[in-house]
Amino acid sequence: MTITPSAAAVDLATRAMAADAADPLAGLRDQFLLPDGVIYLDGNSLGALPLAVPRAVEEVIRRQWGQQLIASWTDAGWWAAPARIGNRLAPIIGAEPDSVVVADSTSVNLFKVVVAAARLQAAEPQRRVIVVDDGTFPTDRYIVDEAARMLGMQVRPAAPDDSSALDETVVAAVYCHVDFRTGVLYDLPVITETIHRAGALAIWDVCHSAGAVPIGLAENQVDLAVGCSYKYLNGGPGSPAFVYVAPHLQSRIDSPLPGWHSHAAPFEMGQDYRPIEGIERMRVGTPPLLSMLALEAALGPFDDVDIALIRARSLELTGLMIEFVRTELAGRLEIVTPQDDVRRGSQVSLRHPDAYRIVRALIARGVIGDFRAPDIIRFGFAPLYVNRQQVVQAGIELAAVLATEEYREPRFAARHTVT
Amino acid sequence: MTITPSAAAVDLATRAMAADAADPLAGLRDQFLLPDGVIYLDGNSLGALPLAVPRAVEEVIRRQWGQQLIASWTDAGWWAAPARIGNRLAPIIGAEPDSVVVADSTSVNLFKVVVAAARLQAAEPQRRVIVVDDGTFPTDRYIVDEAARMLGMQVRPAAPDDSSALDETVVAAVYCHVDFRTGVLYDLPVITETIHRAGALAIWDVCHSAGAVPIGLAENQVDLAVGCSYKYLNGGPGSPAFVYVAPHLQSRIDSPLPGWHSHAAPFEMGQDYRPIEGIERMRVGTPPLLSMLALEAALGPFDDVDIALIRARSLELTGLMIEFVRTELAGRLEIVTPQDDVRRGSQVSLRHPDAYRIVRALIARGVIGDFRAPDIIRFGFAPLYVNRQQVVQAGIELAAVLATEEYREPRFAARHTVT
Repeated sequence: MTITPSAAAVDLATRAMAADAADPLAGLRDQFLLPDGVIYLDGNSLGALPLAVPRAVEEVIRRQWGQQLIASWTDAGWWAAPARIGNRLAPIIGAEPDSVVVADSTSVNLFKVVVAAARLQAAEPQRRVIVVDDGTFPTDRYIVDEAARMLGMQVRPAAPDDSSALDETVVAAVYCHVDFRTGVLYDLPVITETIHRAGALAIWDVCHSAGAVPIGLAENQVDLAVGCSYKYLNGGPGSPAFVYVAPHLQSRIDSPLPGWHSHAAPFEMGQDYRPIEGIERMRVGTPPLLSMLALEAALGPFDDVDIALIRARSLELTGLMIEFVRTELAGRLEIVTPQDDVRRGSQVSLRHPDAYRIVRALIARGVIGDFRAPDIIRFGFAPLYVNRQQVVQAGIELAAVLATEEYREPRFAARHTVT
Repeated sequence: MTITPSAAAVDLATRAMAADAADPLAGLRDQFLLPDGVIYLDGNSLGALPLAVPRAVEEVIRRQWGQQLIASWTDAGWWAAPARIGNRLAPIIGAEPDSVVVADSTSVNLFKVVVAAARLQAAEPQRRVIVVDDGTFPTDRYIVDEAARMLGMQVRPAAPDDSSALDETVVAAVYCHVDFRTGVLYDLPVITETIHRAGALAIWDVCHSAGAVPIGLAENQVDLAVGCSYKYLNGGPGSPAFVYVAPHLQSRIDSPLPGWHSHAAPFEMGQDYRPIEGIERMRVGTPPLLSMLALEAALGPFDDVDIALIRARSLELTGLMIEFVRTELAGRLEIVTPQDDVRRGSQVSLRHPDAYRIVRALIARGVIGDFRAPDIIRFGFAPLYVNRQQVVQAGIELAAVLATEEYREPRFAARHTVT
């Protein structure tokens, strides 16, 4: 059913169009292959397809694998890819050169850094507690629980801004920079300092900030970090994750998952493990190169733009959605994400008892967001390819779904898996 | 320099051509995209490119990722892929349905199963020793060492056929089915029985047998197994590994790397881990789908052929190379791989003090094998796409390299990384 937008909504749309036309970053959208007729607000789950990826992967498959075969490990730079792509990621997340490597999944990397953090703190045996974000993405919690179980330590769940959780018994604190449900952006600089004052190591999961929010791992003296590359970094489904180790810790880092790819002399194939110097120490086994080299090609759009500009655009997009909901849908939905810019990631989460059905009804209208249990409608705003007009249009469709109550139709009841 | 082959070599070549012409499996070679002018004997390191892969991956990238975006997790079967592809692999390695899942790397999977094995044996606290193949691929040893370190257990290196290593203190034995250096095929049925008689769990690394040698995981009552998919299974560089858990152990298996992809209700996103029933319990985080779905397409050639026929062809190929070396190069190279069929994998390893230079000189002649430190020339014979004529031709080139001593040329001295 079509609903005529309000005058205020039309005004917002007009202003959005003008702002898009004047936006120096607007052209970045042309570096993506986006489906027609879709407003894609789920780039915080799976980033859109960068234009450069299909050709790059075809080259990897047909020439590097098909023609050059095993020689590509050296000649095409496969062996060097995890560290090389880590260096491509470093400026995006504010890391020093040679402090990031691409490897495995976020979960596996978190296991490495949590156990490694405990080992770094071995000289302080009274530290037996690992603090973990109590709103964390679930895998992080499961992994921290297991690491603690194997280390014989305790887990203490706490909110990242609850400094009372930090004391002299804490080994490390594992926090998410942006809460995947609520979109809250935590104050990484201040919290990292608080963790350090307690003598603990700061481990950040930056899955929901990398590529959309400046992180400043180096500037803020973060010790260890992990993140995925398939959200705002657009690496493709399940593209490998990354791990950061602060340079001053790299010579002492002791991973519980050593492999021949982190050996100082991998082709000696000796039975004794001798870890390589530097960040490649966090590698394990042979990495999935099609996925990894797709990620490399996907990072192109970041080359020409500062993360601060990306952040400014992100705040405009999320701010516009919040403005729309506040003015057009007041009282119909709870705005969960902070309206204060400094506390907001690149998403807007809205609460509604029928959240699941509303998300489904919006998808039927071509607005792709996602649902997070139990009652969150989640919109992610990928600053590289979402524009203001789309944000307002998404708001208009949301208003229509609520006004028509079409989300109550039986077709929107079936359980649908979203990630 | 050209060397005229001996009359015996010419005779071998003639017979090889006739045997290829009569081979019902010869047509499988057409399902691969192979470079011209190359004899590829390194499929035990990186399998060749199956014809179906480029189109399959293009479909995944352009349609599933680019157009359908996040919906592909359900609509394109992404979430189900690890177990679905596990079921494609199961008949190739002789596993029961729903007992194999594709995930992570071999190293990471080995960490899961070694720790899980120790937990399965928790009722027998006197078992504190993990036996590990003393000729194992190095990563396996590093991972077993770390698992033992975290579990507070000891590691006992031993040859897989040395039953004296197995006693009432052993938790599990981790052996390689085929030795990556020597090509020795261990007697998995007998050794598994011996491990079980000692009350230990049998963990097999089948990297160098999967796709070339029947393994019979089910028939031989193997408990746990891991393997990679980029060698004889042709999944592409770093395609994800697999893990096998015997059906009767699946309900008790307790992985040290739990993740939301192994949760019974992943989209509830709860903070408590509740493992899914069945083999998917060995999943962790989001898998690298481009690499994973390339593997799925790569398995096509196995659909129409029994692994026993593949094995027969493999033995013909390796047997032919051994015959060539024995008759044409007697005393010039030591044949390391067993000449007895039942003790030979799908490779032939030859020892020579100048092995590295000889491998380089052969590559210059278009024969791709690899070097394994300190003195092994290694030829892998992928039965799906290597034929008998190529084996004899490779032998003729090897004879020429030795006769001319061209391997002594300075250009073959530089260190070249091979995997």
